[in-house]
Parts: sequence; C-alpha cells; structure tokens
Amino acid sequence: MSNEEKLTPAFLEYLEECLLQDRMGEVAQVVEDMHPADIAEVIDRLDVTLARKLLDAMPNALSADVIVELDDEVRYDLFEEYSATEIAEKVIGELDSDDAADLISELPEDRIQEVLGKITDDTQAQEIAELLTHEEDTAGSLMAKELVKVNQNWKLMRCVREMRRQAEDIEHVHTVYVVDDENVLLGTLSLKKLLTTSTRTAVSEVFEPSVVSVRTDTDAEEVARIMRKYDLVVIPVVNEDNQLMGRITIDDVVDVITEEAGRDYQMASGLTQDVEATDDVVMLTKARLPWVLIGMIGGVLSSRVIDFFDITQFPEMALFIPLIAATGGNVGVQSAALVVQSLASEGGFKDSLMSKLVKDFGVGLLTGVICATVIFLVSFALGSGYNLAITVSIALLSVIVFAALFGTFIPLMLHKVNVDPAVAVGPFITTTNDIIGLFIYFGVGRVIMM
Amino acid sequence: MSNEEKLTPAFLEYLEECLLQDRMGEVAQVVEDMHPADIAEVIDRLDVTLARKLLDAMPNALSADVIVELDDEVRYDLFEEYSATEIAEKVIGELDSDDAADLISELPEDRIQEVLGKITDDTQAQEIAELLTHEEDTAGSLMAKELVKVNQNWKLMRCVREMRRQAEDIEHVHTVYVVDDENVLLGTLSLKKLLTTSTRTAVSEVFEPSVVSVRTDTDAEEVARIMRKYDLVVIPVVNEDNQLMGRITIDDVVDVITEEAGRDYQMASGLTQDVEATDDVVMLTKARLPWVLIGMIGGVLSSRVIDFFDITQFPEMALFIPLIAATGGNVGVQSAALVVQSLASEGGFKDSLMSKLVKDFGVGLLTGVICATVIFLVSFALGSGYNLAITVSIALLSVIVFAALFGTFIPLMLHKVNVDPAVAVGPFITTTNDIIGLFIYFGVGRVIMM
Repeated sequence: MSNEEKLTPAFLEYLEECLLQDRMGEVAQVVEDMHPADIAEVIDRLDVTLARKLLDAMPNALSADVIVELDDEVRYDLFEEYSATEIAEKVIGELDSDDAADLISELPEDRIQEVLGKITDDTQAQEIAELLTHEEDTAGSLMAKELVKVNQNWKLMRCVREMRRQAEDIEHVHTVYVVDDENVLLGTLSLKKLLTTSTRTAVSEVFEPSVVSVRTDTDAEEVARIMRKYDLVVIPVVNEDNQLMGRITIDDVVDVITEEAGRDYQMASGLTQDVEATDDVVMLTKARLPWVLIGMIGGVLSSRVIDFFDITQFPEMALFIPLIAATGGNVGVQSAALVVQSLASEGGFKDSLMSKLVKDFGVGLLTGVICATVIFLVSFALGSGYNLAITVSIALLSVIVFAALFGTFIPLMLHKVNVDPAVAVGPFITTTNDIIGLFIYFGVGRVIMM
Repeated sequence: MSNEEKLTPAFLEYLEECLLQDRMGEVAQVVEDMHPADIAEVIDRLDVTLARKLLDAMPNALSADVIVELDDEVRYDLFEEYSATEIAEKVIGELDSDDAADLISELPEDRIQEVLGKITDDTQAQEIAELLTHEEDTAGSLMAKELVKVNQNWKLMRCVREMRRQAEDIEHVHTVYVVDDENVLLGTLSLKKLLTTSTRTAVSEVFEPSVVSVRTDTDAEEVARIMRKYDLVVIPVVNEDNQLMGRITIDDVVDVITEEAGRDYQMASGLTQDVEATDDVVMLTKARLPWVLIGMIGGVLSSRVIDFFDITQFPEMALFIPLIAATGGNVGVQSAALVVQSLASEGGFKDSLMSKLVKDFGVGLLTGVICATVIFLVSFALGSGYNLAITVSIALLSVIVFAALFGTFIPLMLHKVNVDPAVAVGPFITTTNDIIGLFIYFGVGRVIMM
C-alpha cells in the first residue's frame, strides 16, 4: 500500500513542529518509509525554509527524487535558495538524464550555463547539454539517454556481462536494444529470450528485428499516440540515420496525455491558462477573465444585432432569444469537440474534409428537423401565435444546421494552419453562434412577422 | 518505424481484391510484417466475410492479437460468425488472462458460459472465470494473472530457474514479485539486483520490501491516479489478506485515463454517449440530441421568465439577454470544470468544501466587479441610458458571483453522492445559469426601471 494515509493536516503540523524544533532525527525517521511523491506533496505545503531543512535531512538520492515531483512553482522558489553547485551536485547528479534536463531547462537562462558548468561527471553534462538542444514537446525533449544496448555480434554470455555493467547506472531495465557497429537500431532482445536461451547463442540469432521507434523530432503527442496504439511501455528514439539516441518511458508519456487532455478540457470550459483549483484567487481570475470578457464582447455584439432589428417593434420575439442562442451554442460545441477528439486519435486512415462536412450536415439536418418540430408545437401550445411559432422553428432549424457545419469547419481549418483545434471548442464557438443565430432569428422574423 | 504508412485507401482496395480473388499467399506476405494494431485498423474497414478470411490466413497467435485491437462493434459482428469452440481455441487460448476476460465479458450471457466450457486449458478457464467475478472498473477487472513471482526463501539461482519456467508463458517480464509461503506480497526483486548479485544470495537479503499495491476492489480511476503519481509501469493487485492476485500494466491504465478524459470532455461538450466522429449519422444524432433538447427546455423556461416579467413593458431590456445568459454560463462552466479537474487529481491532502466555496466566491466577486464596470461603461457609451446600464451592471455582478458558486457547488455535491461530477459541466450548468441569470436580470430591472 502507499503512504497516502499519512498526508493529513495533523501530520503536516507535526512535521512542521519537528522541523521548527530541530528534532531532525525524528524527521528522518518519519519520512524514511515515505515515497518521494508523497514527501513532495508535503513539501508543496511547507514554506521554503522548512522545505529546505527537510530536504537537507534526507540522503541526496532521495531529496533529488522528491524535488522532481514538486510543483513547478515550489521548485522554482526552492532553487532560488540553492547555489549552482548545490543544484548540480545534490540534485542533477542523482537524476536520470531526462529528469535532469527537465529541471535545468526550467532555470533562468544564465543559471542554466552555470549549473551545467558545475556538473562533475563530464558524460552526464554532455548528455544533458545534448538533450537541451531538442525542441520542446518533441521526442528528443522527452527521452532519456540511459538505456541498455547490446551489439548484434555478441554472444548472450557477453550480453549479460555488459548488461550488468550498464545496469549499474540504470534504475529500471525495460528493454535491451540491439544495435550494429554504427549504433544503428536493429531490434530488441527480450529478457525472456535472454533467460531461456543458451548463453553461447549470438544476439543476431535470437533478437526481435521489428521494433516501433520514433525520431528525435517526432511531436510529443504523436509519441503518445503511437505508444498507446502499440501498447508500448518504452519506445526507442532514433536520429535521421536510425542511430539509437535514447528511449522514452510510458510514465513521461502518461504526463503528456493527461496534460493534453487537461488543456483541451480547460479550453472547452473557457480557461485560458493552465490553472488548478489550488491556485490563488488572482491567478484563477487571470485565467478565467479573458474568456468571460470575450463572451461579453459577444453579448454586446448580440445587443447590437437585437437593436439593429429593432426589438421594440416585435418585443415578443425576445422570448426565444435564449433558446436560439443556447441551442446554436450547444450544437456548435458538440461538433467542434467531436472534431478535436477525432483529430487527436487519427492515425492511419483519414477521412476527407468534404465527407466530414457532409456527415455533419446530415446530423445537423436531422437534429434541426426534430428540434424545429418540437419547438413549433411547444411554442404554439404556449400561445405564441402562428407567426412567431413558424419563425422560431425555421430559425432554429437554420441555426442548428449552420452551427453543426461551423463547429466542424472551424477546428478543421485551425488544424490545417497548425493551430491547436481545441481553442475552437467552448466560448469561441458558443459566442460566434450566439451572434449568427440571432441574425438568422431576426432575419427570418423580419420576413415572416412583417 | 511503424507500418502506418501502409494504411491508405489504395492499400485497402488492393487487399480487398487479393481476398476476393483468393490470392491468399500474397495476403499472408503483405500482412506478415505489419503490427497487429495496424492490421486491426484495416479489418475495421473490411466487411465481415473478408475480415474473417483475412484472419483465417494468419497464425492464431497473430489473429488473436489483431482481434483484441479491433473496434468493439467490429469484433461483436465478427464473433457472431465464430463458433464457441473457435473463440475458445483460436482467440482466447492465445491471449493473456486480462485480454481474454475482457473479450469474453463482451459476449452475450449465454455464450460466455459456452465459451468458458470450450477452453481446453483448465488453469486458464479458472483464471478467466475468476477475473470475470470482479466488478467492472475495478483493479480486479483490469488485472492479468500472468506474472513472475519468487519465494523469499529461495536463492537467486533457483529464482532464475523458476523465472525461466514461468517466463515461458509470459510475453513481457516487467517485475519479479517476492511472496512468502502464503502468497502474501512482500516486495519486488529488481532485474538489476538479479543481474548484479551472486547467485548464491537469498532473495530475502536483496529484495526491495516497499511496494505500492492496490486491492482487487480499488476503483480503476484510483489505480490510474496511483500509477501516475508514483510513475509505475506495473502495479501488483492484492486481496484483503494482502495475497498477490495479479498485476496491472500501464497500457491498460493509459486506456482508462484516456477514456475517462474523453468522457469528461464529451460531457463538457454535451455528448451523452461515447461516440466517435466515424460513427454514422443516426448514432451521432442520438448521442447529441438529448443535450440539445435539455438546452431547449432551458430555452423554453427562459421564455417563460421573460414573459413573466412582461418584456413588452421594457423591450430595451431584451438587448442584454444574450450577454447575461452567456456570461453566467461561461463562469459556471469554468468553476465546474476546475472542480472536476481537482477532484480527479486529488490524492492525499484535501481542501474543505467551505474553503473551496470561499475561494470561488472571491474569484466570482473579482471577475464580477471587473465585468460589471466594463459593461456599465460600454452600455452607457452605446446610449443605453443610465437605468438600463445600472441594471445590467448589477445583474451581471450578481449573475457572475452566483454562477461561480453554483458551478463549484453542484459538481462537489454530485461527487459527495457518488455521481460523476463531470455531468455537471457543459449544458447542465449553462442551462440552469441561463434561467437563473434571467431571473436576476429582470428582477433587478423591475426594481430599478419601474
């Protein structure tokens, strides 16, 4: 079982007291059997002086693992307290190259060089510097250099010997890669084969030659899609000459998947920055205000549309303004969300833009006819009068068909011009559909009611 | 590299032709070096007769892997064509217990027993039957029985021998579990230790005693959260007596994470069923219509509110109906989405309901004051008159504060009573806020304008 049951306000208070009273032996004992991720949750809630004190009471290997798991902002504040040498020795020196590069890349530009200069292990410094050259959100920026590889010409006995040596520096051995003399990736050697075959066999006779790999410049989301599709726990990364450069493990990709899903979700719900409920009031307001204001601009424009068509002439048309606006918004968001989801999972086969639009026209028409019929009967039953009932029905049908097409078209266009289509879902589509829906409504009204 | 580049309409056509003309040698050659997941994408697009023909042309081990990757509906149609014996021997017999149990659980009730009866390997039949007893969306329903375990009293040499034997039946060895004589989970043995320690050492001396595990009845989403938090590739599953029952690998959990994120996203965008853009027009309409109709009910109720306050008396109030409704909806959805996200990632520390509401009150107030000021100036500048401007401002402030609180409260309440809080995001919050917002708007208007 995990140690999450320890994470209570009472425990936090107790730990703070220990730290304040310098009962460090007690502190060390308390955190000894806790998982780094749990200790990080505690530190996220301590002030920076106590946090530092707690980290200093741990072995470097543990405190480094804890620091990796901290909230970005907490880590930022903490590193302000550390000297470049301390970061290099106490933290970076204890980490795998991918985590090390991630932490260093978060530092201010001038500190990056300083910390790199303080790393005593030249190979590590070089590896990290290389990882830092890869563009963000590519396979190169996600990968780690630590891996176990064997030459196709070796016998299995030598493999085991070499693997022992390589494994010294590596926490988990996921896969053994097979390369040729030029470090070109040829395939993998399964641990099962290694366990069940005679040690005098050559690697080339027993390795698995087909292996799914990605290139250093492959987009992170594409890496996630491939690993998901092929059920991979680890994937090798190669350069343009198919030379083995590193490997990406699924835990990093799970982070990519959840971040991406979270971003889409936040955009669909009108949040403009990556915020969490635990952020403070000002940060939350900052993330929320832009979309609220854009929605308000839409509202003001809507008021101009209503004014333009002179509502005072047909005040009863006001009754169905919310219905028209809400329905257009709902349908548009549905279409846009479906496009975003299908673009994210699209791998091999792709449907054409035209076939997508034709299908959404069908869905819009079917939905529109049903809704228009319903609203005709309801508004008539509510005593709205024949003219208003027919106006609302025709407008609703038009709005729904338009919203379905518009909601499909906009994210597809954004995707074409390499903008994240997810920005189209949520307030953007809703607001636009509000305005256009009212135009249609009052346009139809002017023709029928006059 | 993967074989996705093969997945083109031209390839599909060529393969269909080969299958129709019985050029089976060519077919076998073409699919030979393709990944099961890619073959599955092809079969998803073939009609069931050709699909069956293609699968029959492959070795059973491969066709079983392909069948696992098929779309649920395609697999359903395909299994209609298979006899129970064929399913048991050609498919189930070739799969790990977790995949086997998943496929069997999709069958109609009477076929489940029939297929279980046809499984020739008694151990497998028993294991699958046990897996089927676990409730859906629990660790028990996700786990596989295949794993490698060693007894704490063994020497490493015996471990390697036993592991070789156990590994015969297992595709990937992720972790070696250490148990006592009662099968109680004690910890793990790292492959690194196994590679780097003398073979005469006892397991008990070198194994890692701390291991994060879940219980068979742990919720699937909780399993996902734990594996993400602790960066796990595989997690052991134990029963109430801490006996080792199985293990869950990250690929299955990634599916849980993406499905969950997809479900939340679909609910936020008003889709009631799990649909994909590739589904047909009727299915898509079915998934979309319910929320559109609920939105329409909201629209009709809104028309009653507007009618109740007699819009014909103050027709100029109609101008800002869309503004009030849209802003209330946007703010409510933001709050609800933040709650849903924070509930999903909440592990150890939990904030109280009161502190969450207080914070959202703060955010609402700050956002509301800013928006109210803006709209006062804008509406005044547009010549709305002092009374209308003040009405809109006061109403907007009230609507925003209410929407923030309401959007926070509803999903938290749903969570308390064990309903997925994600249903609150999207049309539900928007529609309710529309109606209440209009009440506030016209209520304020009646006081100020009269």
